[in-house]
Amino acid sequence: MKTLEIWYEFGSNYSYLSVQRVGELARSRGVPLKWEPFLLGPIFKSFGWETSPFVLQEQKGRYMWRDMERQCEKYGLPWKRPTNFPRRALLPMRVAVLGKDAVWIEAFSRRMMALNFVEDREIDSVEAVSRVLVELGLDAGAIIEQAQDAQNKERLKDQTLRARALGVFGGPTFFVEGEMFWGNDRLDEAVEWAARA
Amino acid sequence: MKTLEIWYEFGSNYSYLSVQRVGELARSRGVPLKWEPFLLGPIFKSFGWETSPFVLQEQKGRYMWRDMERQCEKYGLPWKRPTNFPRRALLPMRVAVLGKDAVWIEAFSRRMMALNFVEDREIDSVEAVSRVLVELGLDAGAIIEQAQDAQNKERLKDQTLRARALGVFGGPTFFVEGEMFWGNDRLDEAVEWAARA
Repeated sequence: MKTLEIWYEFGSNYSYLSVQRVGELARSRGVPLKWEPFLLGPIFKSFGWETSPFVLQEQKGRYMWRDMERQCEKYGLPWKRPTNFPRRALLPMRVAVLGKDAVWIEAFSRRMMALNFVEDREIDSVEAVSRVLVELGLDAGAIIEQAQDAQNKERLKDQTLRARALGVFGGPTFFVEGEMFWGNDRLDEAVEWAARA
Repeated sequence: MKTLEIWYEFGSNYSYLSVQRVGELARSRGVPLKWEPFLLGPIFKSFGWETSPFVLQEQKGRYMWRDMERQCEKYGLPWKRPTNFPRRALLPMRVAVLGKDAVWIEAFSRRMMALNFVEDREIDSVEAVSRVLVELGLDAGAIIEQAQDAQNKERLKDQTLRARALGVFGGPTFFVEGEMFWGNDRLDEAVEWAARA
C-alpha cells in the first residue's frame, strides 16, 4: 500500500471531478491520501500561456464544456457551467495549503469546488471562504489571517514550484511514489496503483 | 443504434490504441463503424504549432510516453516507443482515405499503426505501404497509384478540412451523429453512446 497524492486547484474543472471523487475511492481501497494544492496559473505561464488552454484553444474549450456535462452525469455529480472561467482562487488556495494536512481539508476542498462548479459563485474573497469555514465549524477569522501571513504565502509558492519540479503540466495530477497520473481519467488507475503496491 | 466514426491518423500515438481496439468494441455492441482518416499536422498548424504538443511541451511529452506504456499494458497491446515522433504518414494516409469504406480499411490501419508503434519503422514510403497491402492480398501497385492521383490527394485535404469544421483538435476523435468524444479514454463511452441510441 502506497500513499496517493492529489495535486489540484480550485479553478480547474477536471480537478472538480477528482476532488469530489478521490476521498471515497481512496478510502474504499484503504489507500492513504495526501492533498497537495498548487497554482496552475504559474505553470501555464511557464509554457508561455496567459490563461487556461481551454480558453486559448476555442475548439478544445467548447468540447471540454460538453465533456464536463457528460462526465458529471456519469459520476452522478451536480454541475453548472461557471459564467467566469477560470476563476481566481488565490485566497482559498492559501487556506488549502495551510490546511493540507488538517482533518478538514477534504470537506473544505469539496465545498470550494462546489461553489465554483455547482453554484457558479466567485470564490476568491474573504466572504466566500469565511462562509465555507464557518459551515465546517472552524474559526474562519483565525484561519484566514494565518493563510494570508507571509510564511503561508511562501508555502503556496513552494507547492507550485514543487509541482513544476515534479513535471506537473495540468490539473488534477496524481502521484504514487513518483509514478505520475494526469487527469481525472487516470484517478481510478492511480488508486489501483497505490492499492496494489 | 447509431454509427460511430473514428477520426485518426497514423502518426498519432493515442490513435494507435483506438485503431487497435475500436473494431472489436464496435462489433461486440453491434455498432456500425466508419473510418475517417485525416491529417493532424494542418490542425496543429491552425493553432500556430509546428509539431505535436507532445514535442512542444517537454513535460507533457515525457508523461505521455510513460502513460502509453501503462495503457498498452492495460489493453494487452504490444508497444515500442518510436525513435522518430511524430512520424510522417502522408502516403499511408492517402491510401487510408482511398480505402476508408473498403473491407480492408481496418486491417490496413491496424498494420500501419503496428509498423509505427510496435516495429518502430518509417511508414511514409512506397516500400512500407506496399508491403502491408501485399500482406493483405491487395494489388499494391494499383492502390498506391490511385492513392497518389490528384483527385485522391484532394480527398485527404477535404477530410482534414471536414475535421477542422467539426471542431476536431486532436486524435483520435469519435463522433456519434454530432456528439463528439476526444481521445482513446472516451472510446468506450462513444461506443456505448452509439449502442444506446
